[in-house]
Amino acid sequence: MDCEAEKTVLTPDLVSCRQKFIVSEKEVFRFVEEVFIKLGATPEVAKCVAESIADADNKGHYSHGMNRLGLYITDVDQGVLDLKSTPIILAESAATAWVDGNNALGVVVGNFCMQLAIKKAKESGIGWVVAKGSNHIGVVNFFPEQALKEGLLGFTCCNTSPVVAPWGAKEPALGTNPISFAAPGVNDDSFVMDISTSGVSRGKIELYVKHNQPLPVGWAIGSDGKYVTDAKDAYEKGALTPLGGENNGHKGYGLGLMAEAMSGILAGSKFGPFIRKWGKKIERGDLGQCYACINPEFFAPGYNERMSCLMDYLRNMDPVDPENPVQVPGDWERNNKKKHQDKGGVSYSRVQLQWTNDLAKKLGVAPLKFK
Amino acid sequence: MDCEAEKTVLTPDLVSCRQKFIVSEKEVFRFVEEVFIKLGATPEVAKCVAESIADADNKGHYSHGMNRLGLYITDVDQGVLDLKSTPIILAESAATAWVDGNNALGVVVGNFCMQLAIKKAKESGIGWVVAKGSNHIGVVNFFPEQALKEGLLGFTCCNTSPVVAPWGAKEPALGTNPISFAAPGVNDDSFVMDISTSGVSRGKIELYVKHNQPLPVGWAIGSDGKYVTDAKDAYEKGALTPLGGENNGHKGYGLGLMAEAMSGILAGSKFGPFIRKWGKKIERGDLGQCYACINPEFFAPGYNERMSCLMDYLRNMDPVDPENPVQVPGDWERNNKKKHQDKGGVSYSRVQLQWTNDLAKKLGVAPLKFK
Repeated sequence: MDCEAEKTVLTPDLVSCRQKFIVSEKEVFRFVEEVFIKLGATPEVAKCVAESIADADNKGHYSHGMNRLGLYITDVDQGVLDLKSTPIILAESAATAWVDGNNALGVVVGNFCMQLAIKKAKESGIGWVVAKGSNHIGVVNFFPEQALKEGLLGFTCCNTSPVVAPWGAKEPALGTNPISFAAPGVNDDSFVMDISTSGVSRGKIELYVKHNQPLPVGWAIGSDGKYVTDAKDAYEKGALTPLGGENNGHKGYGLGLMAEAMSGILAGSKFGPFIRKWGKKIERGDLGQCYACINPEFFAPGYNERMSCLMDYLRNMDPVDPENPVQVPGDWERNNKKKHQDKGGVSYSRVQLQWTNDLAKKLGVAPLKFK
Repeated sequence: MDCEAEKTVLTPDLVSCRQKFIVSEKEVFRFVEEVFIKLGATPEVAKCVAESIADADNKGHYSHGMNRLGLYITDVDQGVLDLKSTPIILAESAATAWVDGNNALGVVVGNFCMQLAIKKAKESGIGWVVAKGSNHIGVVNFFPEQALKEGLLGFTCCNTSPVVAPWGAKEPALGTNPISFAAPGVNDDSFVMDISTSGVSRGKIELYVKHNQPLPVGWAIGSDGKYVTDAKDAYEKGALTPLGGENNGHKGYGLGLMAEAMSGILAGSKFGPFIRKWGKKIERGDLGQCYACINPEFFAPGYNERMSCLMDYLRNMDPVDPENPVQVPGDWERNNKKKHQDKGGVSYSRVQLQWTNDLAKKLGVAPLKFK
């Protein structure tokens, strides 16, 4: 059997042959775009979401790529997400804007807000845009990275469904409320941070459930407030814990609250424990998000040179483990993109591919071609 | 012997009587103000720093209150800090400013920048001010809290001397680069976060050295990159680790870099490993800082009500430990201020009081009155 030929069907012999299957970024884009067209999205919206999902998987953020497709489809099926909607500006000044996402796909709202923040930062030195009425935005660094292309610093934070227990509490009341920040260096180099303010993201736990693996201690608590390792138990009944763990969880808790205070509370969307729970989907998301850009030209000259000087210094430091050089946030994603380019695409598991095959059949879309 | 009478001398009988001595906030203010006047500061500068130090200790941030006095005095003695200097604006737009701190005391630069950010946020919805040429700013939440008084959201981050090892590196190259954020609720309630992006601050380690206590595992590494518990060893030869510890240190590393990218790199001050080391003081600080304010009136109406609704929800959650109610960041400081008010002042250790007594004698200032 030729394992390297391009195929679309997971035959039993193929499954026994390998556990990973390679799909090109272009093919992921094509598949997601067609899925959303079938679901009723406009071509522009389908393109937006396809770009975001293909980008997430290509960077290695598998939990927020194709893995999130099911979530969006459920929302569309239940009529709580509007694939034809576009965001509007509710209030605006030279440096700020308050946006209503109008229940559009998160990535559509995000692109709208980030482009607005970019425009404002170019003219005013800073652009600070917050949106209510939004939905899940996928991989968050997708937005600050748009600022990089314009020579700006980008910042995004947002609220999400309550799955994180506040420091010292037994039950969840905050989302994983991620924070992402990007700053440009020279020669297209950049620092790109993208972190959840919990120890790990909900998507990570989901992957452990899918692959039936036990969780590392400290990632989640049970209903009594104690740490659990059963991924399914944590996913269904427990709560994530804030970044910082046992000794410093108050810091992750504070950062999660800051992300909420800058996004949902500022935008007037749902917030904290009042956001819809996971698994209870027949309700609009109405999430809150914050998109900001800073123009380094309004401050000290030579921003990119200083940033590159610092990044180069860090990468050249003596590592604790000689096998693992010191990285700058963003390097991991760059390395993944390089690896995927070298081998012709992203690796998907058999489980993942089976799911997309089933979806393709259901919607009447050509299945993913893989190698 | 009457342990409750006000005194100024640590007699042997007193030392055997108690290990803690109470000094009123007003007396701390008086003492620090007089010390700085003796050191050559203008009355305005002396008032600024006295207010910041008294506030830090009153809130319970002892590592950044009176404990920092020695650092400032060393800088003044060595002529690397200018007590008569005032900051200037180098470039400005309606929403942004680039400031040169002109080597003034950090708190002087911070007050200047924060008041400028407040003015800009009132007019433009946001104010984003960065300073180069600054010095150590003391307790960071002192600045975002100024925004609260004007009904605004406040944000401050900055770089500091390199004491934190980047994720995966053996040596320090970044500061503890703190981030502080404040958001107003109703009836003067507020959420005030103030965290170092390392597991703990350098000041915390310093207090363990002063009291000759072993460090909890995970707060610092030795020169081989492994965790150490000897506080003196860690303080003199080791490095702090980024927030997140063994599993998630890449997140604290990212946050520390973000704070640097928003402050020192943006302001054109010294940055990362190029900032002067601790213990090598004959060099100007030239630190970089970022002070920002957001005006909620430019976004959704009802900010304070939503923030209070969330804070009240969190405080009323079922706690893991029935003895420890769930708190909102800022509650701990509020509780400390209440405790200090109830007992008539801040508690200082014998070691701390002996040090201030010696300083008082050296400068010809009236020593601290304590009970």
